[in-house]
Amino acid sequence: MNLLLKEIRHNPLLWLLIFVPVLFAAQKLRPEAHTLLFVLSVLAIVPLAALLSHATESVAAKTGDAVGGLLNATLGNLTELVIALTALSAGQYMLVKASIAGAIVTNTLFMLGGSFLLGGLKHHVQEYNRVSARMQAGLLLLATVALIIPSAVANVESAAKPVFIQQLSVGLAVLLIVAYGLGMMFSLGTHREIFASAEQGEEGEAPWPIGLALVTLAGVTVLVALVSEIFVESVQQAAQAFGMTPAFIGFIVVALVGGAAEMASAFSGARKDRLDLSVGIALGSASQIALFVAPVLVLLSYVIGPAPMDLQFWPGAVVMILIATLSAAFITVGGRSAWFVGVLLLMVYLIFAMTLYLLPPGLQ
Amino acid sequence: MNLLLKEIRHNPLLWLLIFVPVLFAAQKLRPEAHTLLFVLSVLAIVPLAALLSHATESVAAKTGDAVGGLLNATLGNLTELVIALTALSAGQYMLVKASIAGAIVTNTLFMLGGSFLLGGLKHHVQEYNRVSARMQAGLLLLATVALIIPSAVANVESAAKPVFIQQLSVGLAVLLIVAYGLGMMFSLGTHREIFASAEQGEEGEAPWPIGLALVTLAGVTVLVALVSEIFVESVQQAAQAFGMTPAFIGFIVVALVGGAAEMASAFSGARKDRLDLSVGIALGSASQIALFVAPVLVLLSYVIGPAPMDLQFWPGAVVMILIATLSAAFITVGGRSAWFVGVLLLMVYLIFAMTLYLLPPGLQ
Amino acid sequence: MNLLLKEIRHNPLLWLLIFVPVLFAAQKLRPEAHTLLFVLSVLAIVPLAALLSHATESVAAKTGDAVGGLLNATLGNLTELVIALTALSAGQYMLVKASIAGAIVTNTLFMLGGSFLLGGLKHHVQEYNRVSARMQAGLLLLATVALIIPSAVANVESAAKPVFIQQLSVGLAVLLIVAYGLGMMFSLGTHREIFASAEQGEEGEAPWPIGLALVTLAGVTVLVALVSEIFVESVQQAAQAFGMTPAFIGFIVVALVGGAAEMASAFSGARKDRLDLSVGIALGSASQIALFVAPVLVLLSYVIGPAPMDLQFWPGAVVMILIATLSAAFITVGGRSAWFVGVLLLMVYLIFAMTLYLLPPGLQ
Repeated sequence: MNLLLKEIRHNPLLWLLIFVPVLFAAQKLRPEAHTLLFVLSVLAIVPLAALLSHATESVAAKTGDAVGGLLNATLGNLTELVIALTALSAGQYMLVKASIAGAIVTNTLFMLGGSFLLGGLKHHVQEYNRVSARMQAGLLLLATVALIIPSAVANVESAAKPVFIQQLSVGLAVLLIVAYGLGMMFSLGTHREIFASAEQGEEGEAPWPIGLALVTLAGVTVLVALVSEIFVESVQQAAQAFGMTPAFIGFIVVALVGGAAEMASAFSGARKDRLDLSVGIALGSASQIALFVAPVLVLLSYVIGPAPMDLQFWPGAVVMILIATLSAAFITVGGRSAWFVGVLLLMVYLIFAMTLYLLPPGLQ
Repeated sequence: MNLLLKEIRHNPLLWLLIFVPVLFAAQKLRPEAHTLLFVLSVLAIVPLAALLSHATESVAAKTGDAVGGLLNATLGNLTELVIALTALSAGQYMLVKASIAGAIVTNTLFMLGGSFLLGGLKHHVQEYNRVSARMQAGLLLLATVALIIPSAVANVESAAKPVFIQQLSVGLAVLLIVAYGLGMMFSLGTHREIFASAEQGEEGEAPWPIGLALVTLAGVTVLVALVSEIFVESVQQAAQAFGMTPAFIGFIVVALVGGAAEMASAFSGARKDRLDLSVGIALGSASQIALFVAPVLVLLSYVIGPAPMDLQFWPGAVVMILIATLSAAFITVGGRSAWFVGVLLLMVYLIFAMTLYLLPPGLQ
Repeated sequence: MNLLLKEIRHNPLLWLLIFVPVLFAAQKLRPEAHTLLFVLSVLAIVPLAALLSHATESVAAKTGDAVGGLLNATLGNLTELVIALTALSAGQYMLVKASIAGAIVTNTLFMLGGSFLLGGLKHHVQEYNRVSARMQAGLLLLATVALIIPSAVANVESAAKPVFIQQLSVGLAVLLIVAYGLGMMFSLGTHREIFASAEQGEEGEAPWPIGLALVTLAGVTVLVALVSEIFVESVQQAAQAFGMTPAFIGFIVVALVGGAAEMASAFSGARKDRLDLSVGIALGSASQIALFVAPVLVLLSYVIGPAPMDLQFWPGAVVMILIATLSAAFITVGGRSAWFVGVLLLMVYLIFAMTLYLLPPGLQ
């Protein structure tokens, strides 16, 4: 417990934890103040995600390489998963899908581009392990194919279409999880020596004892779930109040909030010239969401949700995911980076953000 | 003749030749048993394709480098050509187009992916001549452009559209054949030293004497034509009986049957760590179908078919061809392979196969 | 003045200057002879573009590296800009957009492909600075994303769409100009050593004195504007007379005419085995049009044009730009070239040209 308090004292991000009790108090006192609740829940999720991420890493560090890698790979995006599950059980499928698409795009463009830019402003040219980047890019492209196919194939309306899309989505979800599992066997198992430099943990942050880590993991997950519930309830009205489109909220705001903790790690790695770490976090997180979180949500929708969820996305989202993953693949072929490479990726992200911000609701 | 019998005795694939007479007998006795005739014709085509392939290589080996390369390049997909010609003269243009698209996709994803996986399970990391792979990928991308353009440009319905698509298809067919010819000049002529390692013949299989090879070539081609006729006649009803969609039959079944012999060579090359051979067969065969077989069928449709055939494909097929050729191009940039690379390609193939299997007929 | 006359005597391309007075005379005498005026204006623009290009380079050479680079980068496509401005103020937005798209496609496919082919016919294998090519390809892909997004996102018709497309176009135009500016900071400023070999000026052509260069720049720009006006007025009727579609004229003829001078430099560089120069001209010019000329036209349309112009292109043009930039990116990854690489690019260009030539007007 002392350790936890010490960590909180040294990490300014965790001072935001104060917003967790403030949020719960505000919800009791003013349950109809949606905009206030929205802002508070955003501020509360950021430090919780940081704690969750550190707890996961601590458990992973204690359990040895294989199990640890597995844990990191499945719980690394626990925040995104919990937010999406809350939205799923509330039947808000458009928000779930927008947040999945947004997380993929934000990780491959904003997190990767930001790392290249911040690292490049300090270091003239940076190098990183391109084998690892290529594998993640390959997994991402596979997931993109799975997301394109339902829309590309079934472009005619027909009574048989909904059933087809449902069956196909379940099949695709299973295939993606299998591919993700085989990818872990490859990078943590048979060919781990190729990925060596990309797997170093982050120095400086000592892992917690296993007991503290497990308790934090459980407790914070519950808190994230409670905060997410308020977030999901208030997001629609808050969007209207801010004049933001629902697409912009789901794609940009939720993705930035859910990934804030990882972004902090990726950006700090890039400044320390440890670009392997940044690229690994950015692309690894994107492929985890595409090949693990998204399929798990499809399968869980049969248990939790009011109705099954499919993998058919809004065409604009599919185009953005495709462009984002192709950009990441094209950019990381060389394994070298300078500040302008980051600018290119961030510009593509800005184009998407601007488009979603301006997009009239009727056009989605 | 002894040589032929000896080869048959040593090659278990050729024992399937017994199904050729069985098929002809079955057609005489039970002409209405479509499902039986379909299964028998599939079983009969596989060994005939293997014989055809060996005969072509033997003739090529005897005629010297330039003519031999030309022969291999034009007759290498003789089985696919004969099946497609039979379907063409029966006016089954949807089957022709599905089998062209399916052959390109099957060669670039299933044959290439299977080679990488089977080779990678035995060898930790394999290398191959990426110059040759890049050239084939470039030719394939050119053909893909030719297949995309008619659909991409003419997205408005109009009375002038059918004439435009016909003229454009003939023009594209001529351009593709010219590009294919120039590609051969490049790889067999002016720059053959770059492609050196990719052109070794397959060891172990001694070429036949020229007389035997020519007679086999002629005789087996006739047999393939006769078997194809039964195959094309029975495929529709058999598909219904098996609960398969016509798209699945054309895309997946016909392509796997027509390419079985080449697949056996490609997979066995990969196991022997001769990945140059496997990549050469897979991509070479795909670009041959896209740049030679498909355009020849368009031009021949003016002579043989009941009506001219165009190069406009079902949009879903265009997307699949595009994804398949881009995947092959992205994967082969590095010139190195491990088992997981094969898994990625095979996963994309599985996504396509599953989609086509589930696709309701009304949505195509 | 003597220098100018000497240059004209030694450069056969400049003999075409005779068509400038001929054109003005013809317009006075036979203002309704549209086909004649069209042909004369095409012949008059080519030598004016060559003069403009030499004058710009001379001014750039005198003003030192940074300012010179900036001048070359902004005035390098002055001819295209003046033609497009003339069409803009005449309200011919379809012609403006077709000429922008056509210039991008022509530079990346025809100019680059022609350089590879002509260079490759003389030299067995040629190498060039791929870092520079990759950066230009990255900028081009960014511009392509900006052109795809409006069509990809707003695929539903709605009353709110025109306003959205206008706002988005202005935003995209600003982003593209910023990206272009940052790209110049990168290649001329912080990382200029990486781009070293691509920036050598063309030997043999001595720069003019600054006075002559500035006077030529001003005078020729006025002449180009006058000739462009006749060109834009006559192009529609001439197209009908030649049986060409307006799309073919805008995309192919205007782009070839406007870029003739640069093509001459690129091709002659390739023959002299200075492929860095050719690749730099081709891709640099394409990215200049996509990231500078096109956005400037959008912003100027609020001042000059009868109505604001947006960045939404005809879907067929978007597909062609996408294919052209992806082809250039794929081809230049290796940094090596042989004649067949040029053939591949030229074949894609031929496919586009043929498609546009055959395209019935109703289908655009």
